[in-house]
Amino acid sequence: MVTSTIHEGRHFLQIPGPTNVPDRVLRAMTRPTIDHRGPEFASLTLSILGRLKQVFKTTGPVIIFPSSGTGAWEAALVNTLSRGDLLLMYETGQFAHLWRGVAERLEYEVEWIDDDWRHGVDSERIFDRLTADKEHRIGAVAVVHNETSTGITSNISGVRRAIDEAGHPALLIVDTISSLASMDYRHDEWGVDVTVGGSQKGLMLPPGLGFNALSERALQASASASLGRSYWAWDPVIEANKSGFFPYTPATNLLFGLDQALDMLIEEGLDSVFSRHARLARATREALSGWELENLAISPAEYSDSLTAVMMPEGYDADELRRLILERFDMALGTGLGKVQGRVFRIGHLGHFNELMLMGTLCGVEMGLELAGVPHKKGGVDAAMRILAEQG
Amino acid sequence: MVTSTIHEGRHFLQIPGPTNVPDRVLRAMTRPTIDHRGPEFASLTLSILGRLKQVFKTTGPVIIFPSSGTGAWEAALVNTLSRGDLLLMYETGQFAHLWRGVAERLEYEVEWIDDDWRHGVDSERIFDRLTADKEHRIGAVAVVHNETSTGITSNISGVRRAIDEAGHPALLIVDTISSLASMDYRHDEWGVDVTVGGSQKGLMLPPGLGFNALSERALQASASASLGRSYWAWDPVIEANKSGFFPYTPATNLLFGLDQALDMLIEEGLDSVFSRHARLARATREALSGWELENLAISPAEYSDSLTAVMMPEGYDADELRRLILERFDMALGTGLGKVQGRVFRIGHLGHFNELMLMGTLCGVEMGLELAGVPHKKGGVDAAMRILAEQG
Amino acid sequence: MVTSTIHEGRHFLQIPGPTNVPDRVLRAMTRPTIDHRGPEFASLTLSILGRLKQVFKTTGPVIIFPSSGTGAWEAALVNTLSRGDLLLMYETGQFAHLWRGVAERLEYEVEWIDDDWRHGVDSERIFDRLTADKEHRIGAVAVVHNETSTGITSNISGVRRAIDEAGHPALLIVDTISSLASMDYRHDEWGVDVTVGGSQKGLMLPPGLGFNALSERALQASASASLGRSYWAWDPVIEANKSGFFPYTPATNLLFGLDQALDMLIEEGLDSVFSRHARLARATREALSGWELENLAISPAEYSDSLTAVMMPEGYDADELRRLILERFDMALGTGLGKVQGRVFRIGHLGHFNELMLMGTLCGVEMGLELAGVPHKKGGVDAAMRILAEQG
Amino acid sequence: MVTSTIHEGRHFLQIPGPTNVPDRVLRAMTRPTIDHRGPEFASLTLSILGRLKQVFKTTGPVIIFPSSGTGAWEAALVNTLSRGDLLLMYETGQFAHLWRGVAERLEYEVEWIDDDWRHGVDSERIFDRLTADKEHRIGAVAVVHNETSTGITSNISGVRRAIDEAGHPALLIVDTISSLASMDYRHDEWGVDVTVGGSQKGLMLPPGLGFNALSERALQASASASLGRSYWAWDPVIEANKSGFFPYTPATNLLFGLDQALDMLIEEGLDSVFSRHARLARATREALSGWELENLAISPAEYSDSLTAVMMPEGYDADELRRLILERFDMALGTGLGKVQGRVFRIGHLGHFNELMLMGTLCGVEMGLELAGVPHKKGGVDAAMRILAEQG
Repeated sequence: MVTSTIHEGRHFLQIPGPTNVPDRVLRAMTRPTIDHRGPEFASLTLSILGRLKQVFKTTGPVIIFPSSGTGAWEAALVNTLSRGDLLLMYETGQFAHLWRGVAERLEYEVEWIDDDWRHGVDSERIFDRLTADKEHRIGAVAVVHNETSTGITSNISGVRRAIDEAGHPALLIVDTISSLASMDYRHDEWGVDVTVGGSQKGLMLPPGLGFNALSERALQASASASLGRSYWAWDPVIEANKSGFFPYTPATNLLFGLDQALDMLIEEGLDSVFSRHARLARATREALSGWELENLAISPAEYSDSLTAVMMPEGYDADELRRLILERFDMALGTGLGKVQGRVFRIGHLGHFNELMLMGTLCGVEMGLELAGVPHKKGGVDAAMRILAEQG
Repeated sequence: MVTSTIHEGRHFLQIPGPTNVPDRVLRAMTRPTIDHRGPEFASLTLSILGRLKQVFKTTGPVIIFPSSGTGAWEAALVNTLSRGDLLLMYETGQFAHLWRGVAERLEYEVEWIDDDWRHGVDSERIFDRLTADKEHRIGAVAVVHNETSTGITSNISGVRRAIDEAGHPALLIVDTISSLASMDYRHDEWGVDVTVGGSQKGLMLPPGLGFNALSERALQASASASLGRSYWAWDPVIEANKSGFFPYTPATNLLFGLDQALDMLIEEGLDSVFSRHARLARATREALSGWELENLAISPAEYSDSLTAVMMPEGYDADELRRLILERFDMALGTGLGKVQGRVFRIGHLGHFNELMLMGTLCGVEMGLELAGVPHKKGGVDAAMRILAEQG
Repeated sequence: MVTSTIHEGRHFLQIPGPTNVPDRVLRAMTRPTIDHRGPEFASLTLSILGRLKQVFKTTGPVIIFPSSGTGAWEAALVNTLSRGDLLLMYETGQFAHLWRGVAERLEYEVEWIDDDWRHGVDSERIFDRLTADKEHRIGAVAVVHNETSTGITSNISGVRRAIDEAGHPALLIVDTISSLASMDYRHDEWGVDVTVGGSQKGLMLPPGLGFNALSERALQASASASLGRSYWAWDPVIEANKSGFFPYTPATNLLFGLDQALDMLIEEGLDSVFSRHARLARATREALSGWELENLAISPAEYSDSLTAVMMPEGYDADELRRLILERFDMALGTGLGKVQGRVFRIGHLGHFNELMLMGTLCGVEMGLELAGVPHKKGGVDAAMRILAEQG
Repeated sequence: MVTSTIHEGRHFLQIPGPTNVPDRVLRAMTRPTIDHRGPEFASLTLSILGRLKQVFKTTGPVIIFPSSGTGAWEAALVNTLSRGDLLLMYETGQFAHLWRGVAERLEYEVEWIDDDWRHGVDSERIFDRLTADKEHRIGAVAVVHNETSTGITSNISGVRRAIDEAGHPALLIVDTISSLASMDYRHDEWGVDVTVGGSQKGLMLPPGLGFNALSERALQASASASLGRSYWAWDPVIEANKSGFFPYTPATNLLFGLDQALDMLIEEGLDSVFSRHARLARATREALSGWELENLAISPAEYSDSLTAVMMPEGYDADELRRLILERFDMALGTGLGKVQGRVFRIGHLGHFNELMLMGTLCGVEMGLELAGVPHKKGGVDAAMRILAEQG
């Protein structure tokens, strides 16, 4: 049902992605399409790939797919694992579940570590499973860095350490779809083998591009992985990318946008980008405290800097609140997914975002709580302002 | 000096005009320019003129100039008054002063009613002057409907009544640059002879178009007005407009934008537009009360719905506060103009604007007051939220 | 190597896709991204899907993938065929070859009918193979409707007839990437089971979307196809599309563009679109005759209406000519692909294209031939004008 | 009457202005409007003014008005001449006539040198009049550099020499609306006192900005000119421009476009811009010869490089031809203005324009001549190609 209310002023798109695309990126996307086999295009590709590596903090190849992030999940698996391979996955939330579904539909066997959606990956449990896997049947450990359904960030270098300490050869595959370019992430330093990314969150683009960053070991694995693959195959992309081209028609205008978005990230500086996200996330959490509402994330060390999942008081429906806020204040908040449907709503505070956009967002939530009759204390907005008005 | 701070997220343009231009209008302005003497252009002009009349609430002609609003001031005078004619003007604030300057540079004689910038036009003083003008030397009364430097709205139908009750033939010329399409305004019903408008406020366009709406009496006056005029002459425009053209090259792409903006206003409905502005203005004033800061406007009946001028506590510099807010929160507020420079800042809450944009704005002000050490009470933001979260 | 020449005026993108994207579509793509789980998005999806069916001339489902056209090739296969299934393919040119490569990498067995790249599909040879396949090992016949490397169109209803007359149950899968929305194509009437399309040709969009239109039999086949699939799986898309959503984040802004492009096609009328392409193609072929250059396509019944592949006189390099034309006249022409590399160049005359754009294109070719010293007769441009200036 | 024909592909806007605005400029115009009193705006203004001087080839001030070019005509007069002053003007065509109308409506006395619309300014006749004006009643000589109604360029340095040789103190005022940034023009070197320009021709912008470039003598004249002026007054603009601001709200988004257009002109290099226009103009004239149609301009030294006015054979209506070409080929050509209405049509070949755009244009004319049954020889297009395909 399309709402008939006409809204003026800017829509607040505060789901945890797709995020608000900067005008500058949207403008870049309207450049006339060019020949993807011509010299101007080659030069664009090479420049983009160089800067993408900085964002992933890697010196290895980064692959760009015309796809959603789920496509990049699939690519990470089919290039490294053979049919029937065993994959160790960890239940951080709905996106871990969905990724597991992808793996199973692709006929991998998944060993699943379940958890309560309120914690990040427990590296000890990874260590235990790997240690128990004497025959090294587990081909890869696949975890989500920042679980978009829960607002919980996992310690990836801890997972790497667990694998190493178990003396296990499994590859480490990490989903950074909602953390990349919003929170610090280090593909090389943390020893990740395949990093999965998407365009529509911290990269400030519309959806439509998926990414894989690769380690040397991932490349070796791809040489022996036996599953038939074509669209997702890394090799032809790496080969064509050398001269700035792609093995099939790339999504030219999204690449125009990516070119701008990378410029913006580098102009601001990645460290500034991360501290901006950290500051806005901290203010959001102070608002929760002010409202006396609970964060789905339990451990402060695991709080996400790109989104916050807010628990509703018992007996109140999160989607009812979201619907009211959309109708009354033209703001879209993230729904509770999977087993927290109705019990949680999510505030996206990532990408092209700043202090006053956040305050508009938090005011919208506070007024929505009031209008929906959800029990809460006033003072969330005030608490957030105290953080943001601290002397620099 | 260009600030070197890099800001991410959307800039908050909260001066009382130019206002935030809707994406939809900006997109319309990128249509390829067309032949201004061709059939498609003629049809566009006729459609625009029909809808513009609805906005001015007139059945008479509305003239569109490629100019700023000051150009439309000049046009209103040179078409109706002859050299040396006497003009009665009223000191509502800086824009009344500037308009007076235009009149004097054009060699009209101005009779000036001075006032304290904290009140709108006092119709009784108009009545008194006109009554005293037995020889009917005064050719026109020129007043500002919504004084952009003070946030004070004058009662235009009251001015009309004063003229009528004085039995004086003076024309009534009204500046609505910062009220048109934000607050109710009725060219025909209120007996206005020339209404002056601009594109960059309630009409939600970039600057570059000026408007004159005309009464029958204004048209008659223009037939006998003796001042040489060419660019601003109404007659050739009215004549060419009949078939959808202009006597000289019009600002085609701004007209593409105007076409969209008129659609948006009509889709929302003028009454809804006005009540939205009234609601956001009321919330802003509640914030002032919450902060215990003074509104430059004294009389509630004269509070403007499109902007609010906030007085600084004695000894604090408004421009210092504005500079800090721009640097820290990327929000532009309006400076104090003329004699209130440094003592007042202005919050624009008009045009393409909504509840959460306002709340971001007010949070920026509240945090700025804190950071600048300006004495104030907390609670302005909370007070505004109480208004906006009232049950519909 | 990036050319350093600065060109003013519009670039002529006359490769056979990506094509010149209309300003109107580019503008639509700059709308701010919206929540892909919200009501506005659902209504957009449903409206797009309804109009897409008109373009494919089907009443069955059409699937939209965030992918290139090669992705849609892959999707057509993995949803209908099981591992090791036999696929009958026909060598119409380079894209048939590439598609074969996709099939083989996905571990299908391909039975290949080779041909000389100068003819379309010979239905009799299809009939013969199917008749010989007594055990019905062939699961599908996969052919290219309009071979983008050669400018040759195949008779798809003829292929259908061959399958039927052979009494063979094979599915018919057809690539229409460079014909859809440029030339008449009838998914239902011609009995096609899966039609493969892409966004960047007749649909006038940038690359980034792939399409599959499905018959009832294709849907049945997908229920029993055994190859693991996730991203390309039809079922979850069909299910989610029912309420206007997608199982994973769709390419929102490309969908905004598709929405406009569909409006444009329907406003012009598909029959007008096709006759426009036919007229421009005929003028192009007349130019070839005028130049006494040979069309790679031999049979008039198989001439493509969306592109023309021009053969170079013996001893002259097509890519040398293309390079010169790009540098001197800022026009990109299509390179010869695969085995006709250097011997052929291709003129794209499809999508958002009209008479004067074509004439600019043909003049660029004629001047290029002159400058490159390629033997030809003058008169190609004149011949094309004769066609286009025929009394309507 | 709006034509109901739906056209696909790009419209050919080949009137001699407004011209085809580059995508890059249109995109720049969609940047969100900024505070015209803020630091970012100041820096933009200063940068624009510096580059504008290069285009006018002056070291003196250049004034930017939110206005059409006719506004800039008016500004040139009211700043330099007092009421009743005598102005010497020359009948080059319709725009000289229109400018004379402006002068007369502003109550200047005009001394008019009539001519046949087929020649540029005859400097000897200027010399004779000035010599005869012993009392130096003539305050200024005002001529059109490139007459847009006729496609004839006048020798401005010749006019300057005539004034000097007559020993007359008259100012020299020159309209360059359709020549600036298309043909060489030297404000300082040629001793021009006021140069009048507009945005919508060689500057590649939509209409909406007018320009005055000033000499030292023009500034002195403005100090003593007695006509009342406000909007057009130079002094307050020059004063405010020093710090990057304007005395009234400038047309911000058109300035964003101007910023880009200046970049484009400087990147290409003014000399390259001029030689490109010269080459395209020469090719157009060769087409006229090929068709055996007559150029309205008689003297080769006076041929315009930005447009060509084509005379129709006796008994054939130019507007009938233009209408047919618009309907059939979606190309707008310039109408014959004033006394050559119906007898002449004009081809604009200026601004963002290149070889293949010109060839599309000329093919459209040649096909239109054929369809309209206008007597002509074939071969115009061929002749133009010969010029453009000359070895560089």
